[in-house]
Amino acid sequence: MEKNNNKYLDTLRHSAAHLLAKAVLELWPGTHNAIGPAIENGFYQDFDMGSTKISESDLPKIEEKMREILPSWNHFEFQEVSLEQAKKIFKENPYKVELAKEFAKDGKALKTNNPGNFLDLCKMGHVDYPSKELKYFKLLSIAGAYWRGNEKNKMLTRIYGTCFPTKDELDTYLWQQEEAKKRDHKKIGKALELFLFSPTVGPGLPIFMPKGEILRRIIEDYLVKLKESYGLQFVWTPHIARTELYKQSKHWHKYDAMMPPLKVEEDEYTLKPMNCPHHFQIYLEKPRSYRDLPLRLAENSTVYRYEKSGVLNGLFRVRSVTQDDSHWFVKYEEVQQEIDRAISLTKEVYDAFGLKNFRARISVRDKSHLEKYLGEGTVWDNAEKELEDAVNSRKIPYEIGTGEAAFYGPKIDFLVKDSLSREWQLTTIQLDFNQPENFDLNYTDADGGQKRPAILHIAIIGATERFLAILIEHYAGKFPLWISPVQVKIIPIADRHNSTALAVFKKLREENIRVELDSRSESMQSKIRDASLQKIPFTVIIGDKEQESSDINTNTYVVTVRERSGENRQNVALSAFLEELKTQIEKKL
Amino acid sequence: MEKNNNKYLDTLRHSAAHLLAKAVLELWPGTHNAIGPAIENGFYQDFDMGSTKISESDLPKIEEKMREILPSWNHFEFQEVSLEQAKKIFKENPYKVELAKEFAKDGKALKTNNPGNFLDLCKMGHVDYPSKELKYFKLLSIAGAYWRGNEKNKMLTRIYGTCFPTKDELDTYLWQQEEAKKRDHKKIGKALELFLFSPTVGPGLPIFMPKGEILRRIIEDYLVKLKESYGLQFVWTPHIARTELYKQSKHWHKYDAMMPPLKVEEDEYTLKPMNCPHHFQIYLEKPRSYRDLPLRLAENSTVYRYEKSGVLNGLFRVRSVTQDDSHWFVKYEEVQQEIDRAISLTKEVYDAFGLKNFRARISVRDKSHLEKYLGEGTVWDNAEKELEDAVNSRKIPYEIGTGEAAFYGPKIDFLVKDSLSREWQLTTIQLDFNQPENFDLNYTDADGGQKRPAILHIAIIGATERFLAILIEHYAGKFPLWISPVQVKIIPIADRHNSTALAVFKKLREENIRVELDSRSESMQSKIRDASLQKIPFTVIIGDKEQESSDINTNTYVVTVRERSGENRQNVALSAFLEELKTQIEKKL
Repeated sequence: MEKNNNKYLDTLRHSAAHLLAKAVLELWPGTHNAIGPAIENGFYQDFDMGSTKISESDLPKIEEKMREILPSWNHFEFQEVSLEQAKKIFKENPYKVELAKEFAKDGKALKTNNPGNFLDLCKMGHVDYPSKELKYFKLLSIAGAYWRGNEKNKMLTRIYGTCFPTKDELDTYLWQQEEAKKRDHKKIGKALELFLFSPTVGPGLPIFMPKGEILRRIIEDYLVKLKESYGLQFVWTPHIARTELYKQSKHWHKYDAMMPPLKVEEDEYTLKPMNCPHHFQIYLEKPRSYRDLPLRLAENSTVYRYEKSGVLNGLFRVRSVTQDDSHWFVKYEEVQQEIDRAISLTKEVYDAFGLKNFRARISVRDKSHLEKYLGEGTVWDNAEKELEDAVNSRKIPYEIGTGEAAFYGPKIDFLVKDSLSREWQLTTIQLDFNQPENFDLNYTDADGGQKRPAILHIAIIGATERFLAILIEHYAGKFPLWISPVQVKIIPIADRHNSTALAVFKKLREENIRVELDSRSESMQSKIRDASLQKIPFTVIIGDKEQESSDINTNTYVVTVRERSGENRQNVALSAFLEELKTQIEKKL
Repeated sequence: MEKNNNKYLDTLRHSAAHLLAKAVLELWPGTHNAIGPAIENGFYQDFDMGSTKISESDLPKIEEKMREILPSWNHFEFQEVSLEQAKKIFKENPYKVELAKEFAKDGKALKTNNPGNFLDLCKMGHVDYPSKELKYFKLLSIAGAYWRGNEKNKMLTRIYGTCFPTKDELDTYLWQQEEAKKRDHKKIGKALELFLFSPTVGPGLPIFMPKGEILRRIIEDYLVKLKESYGLQFVWTPHIARTELYKQSKHWHKYDAMMPPLKVEEDEYTLKPMNCPHHFQIYLEKPRSYRDLPLRLAENSTVYRYEKSGVLNGLFRVRSVTQDDSHWFVKYEEVQQEIDRAISLTKEVYDAFGLKNFRARISVRDKSHLEKYLGEGTVWDNAEKELEDAVNSRKIPYEIGTGEAAFYGPKIDFLVKDSLSREWQLTTIQLDFNQPENFDLNYTDADGGQKRPAILHIAIIGATERFLAILIEHYAGKFPLWISPVQVKIIPIADRHNSTALAVFKKLREENIRVELDSRSESMQSKIRDASLQKIPFTVIIGDKEQESSDINTNTYVVTVRERSGENRQNVALSAFLEELKTQIEKKL
């Protein structure tokens, strides 16, 4: 068994849930364990503990018991039993009996397993050598959970934990979790006054305050300029459309994140959940010839998606999603060159934002079910090969997701690792053989014949909101200079330095540096602390010494520059500092 | 009677409608005239012509008859009659009888008027000396119109016309109308590929094609940079909000352009018809002190307004309205200085877009109904005076609209004349004493006390869509260089000049000039004609002579520059042309 893929991790963690169950049953006899599945990043186990209440302070005790039991768990023993036998074995545990009945009804084999004399019933895989493999676990938290998620059922005690094949992996994960808490973009977003959520406006609808909007604008403006240099043309489309548009695109009643419609006069309208069919209207505006292709239409527009309020999560998951969307209408014979162009663009964007570590995932057909896919086999064969060649030729690490392609075309996703080594899916390059049919998109080829273009749906950062959340956590709010909402804070030590400080402020502002002047009558230390809490890249301090060395008449200044790291540099000519700033901004450092 | 105000024009035009009625009744005996009011820019008169059908080719004949009758119309004679008399006089005309009954029911005096032996019944004012005053009229068009606008009633024949006090004014108006047809932004927008309307997307929801989006972006980016230099801070707010937000702002069920709501989970949401209450959430995010004021929050955001499909009109009137909105939270004692700042900003914007001719209109209270207005009398007195002082001190011509203030505050509108001398209301600076109450907005003053700020709602160009429509018609599509979507078109005369043309194209593009290369195998004349139809400011022509004088190795080129006027300049060094372009762009020419 390959030990580092997700299947193994699931097995490992499910096995750890058994160990947890055994420990809890030993510590609190009479407790019944319900289910204990592996989940993303760990596992949980649910318990009916009767009237016993436990808290997170009990977790070390449980962990200790687990460690005590573990050496005796050499392997899982399985035995197939009949429903009657199962009912007898688990007669004290109503949850297992209920599950056993269900398994039997579904025709599944009932297997008990018994490591270290702990009889259990379940359907997942288990590790071969628990005493060796389950060493690196950690219990994380406790919560209440209704049996089967139904609030009419009994509330059980759920204990969360995780388990990794090695100590290093466990330590890294725990450090990531700890660090991620500190870097939580919701906390940093509030502290840095980037965005807010208003209950009156509604959940999942962030409002960006001035500093947050500067970040948005820098990111979006950068993308616009870069994309134009790659031959993309920007367009603007409204945020609503007649529902008719989504009937034609076949999203209506199929795409489940659609907001409900509203009625205007005789027509029904919906908030757009995507820009594609709007962009097709531009394609359709005039007859297209092979000379017009590739036509690459781009838009940074906010689409609205219905996400359940329970899954909304800061800027990671919102209802107002500003996509850096684009639709490339291409001849089939130019698909590969355009994918190549899109990958160049992607790499340049990652580079600009300091995201050095990424890999690709190519979603292709399940060849045993070719009937599920639209379009000709040879077209698919070519396209899948072209996607693979494109990442291969650039030596981008990749994996193939067999059977993961949509019915209308294969795609490449790019997964980016942040500074905590967490992976985020950012870019999608999706080939589409279907929408050109739905909207009857054509072009006249050089030989005069009418042909269908293919469409590439391409979003590089995905959504401004989510990308901002990732950047905030990646940088822990310590943004590179070029995107920092405030690049320089100027601090006069005392009121008598205000005029020099103001002159320096004006000079930097004239040079388009985003600068703030803190002329409050507070102590220098307190002003420096505030600038540091705001994670501003540079603080310029002006006191007696700096003022004496400066000359307002000739507009030359000497200042002390404090770096975000806390390091101070004295006697810095403002002109030299300005050059340094410009170079750093230019280089996107 | 003041002869050049709107009241006089209404009187004049209504009188002309009488003359039209008389002429039609003489030409087609048995016809009944119904109503004939003055409208904006003219008048109409409705007729029941029985089975007679007339067309616009009959208008000269009717005009001739009007001119024939006019000298005999020395003045209008009026006589008050009873309902019984009126019924008798107009017994042949069911429309007049119906009106007479209504007038009587409403307690209005019934007056017949009889110029030149034409007995009529109406309620509007008339000119004193028709034979002199009605000379400058013109009939414009014919349409069908149901009696009283109700489709269950009989369809009448409506003749439109206009009338002015002087020949000059009439000629100017007719020229404007003729010229406006040629400059129709809907036609130019299509020819220049700026925007489109898609029936599938819906009426009033323009889609901007790449060249239209470039115009939008140049305008909006310019406004962002300029506004930031005036101390405005940009924010971003979503396009929907819980209906609750508009209940708090008291727009719900009062503001009639609100789109209907949609339901998400337990909550009702609406598309935002304005940004104000969203911006208030940012104000409310933290306690505000006098140091935070003025706080000027700005946003270029699209709001959605329900306009009846019948009143939608190209980009002039749309349902997706991208406002250049801002809300300035100010201390009462700083209102005047902030209005002054807003007027400076306004003037700078008008100047940039070549709108030299404007005036202000100040809307103040009707002092005989002070009970209608919210807030203290002295606050209003001050504010009204401050608005007047602000325009006065800058020698901006203005008029006072007594009784035109909203209940929550006075305002200044700016009306701008375009190149056809048509007036457009663009900027609004609206004081608001009410919303700070609705949202309980406060700040802590220097003395520690809690105070309410005032709000200034300020939009300079109003809406990007409408402003674009105005600019397109103002410039007849011949945009100044700095906003032209394509600034330079490069035309190689023959295929052998393509490589030099491409080098010139690249050089201009490197310098951020918006440039297109027309390397089609068409004749030079046809390419020049196309560039001219696209109203591109400069065309660069490259043929044998230019190619010989150029040197690709040293990257120096000599070209022929053709201006939009058709004038050709030969032997122009590309470097000199580039400097010329940059200077012109820099100066916004």
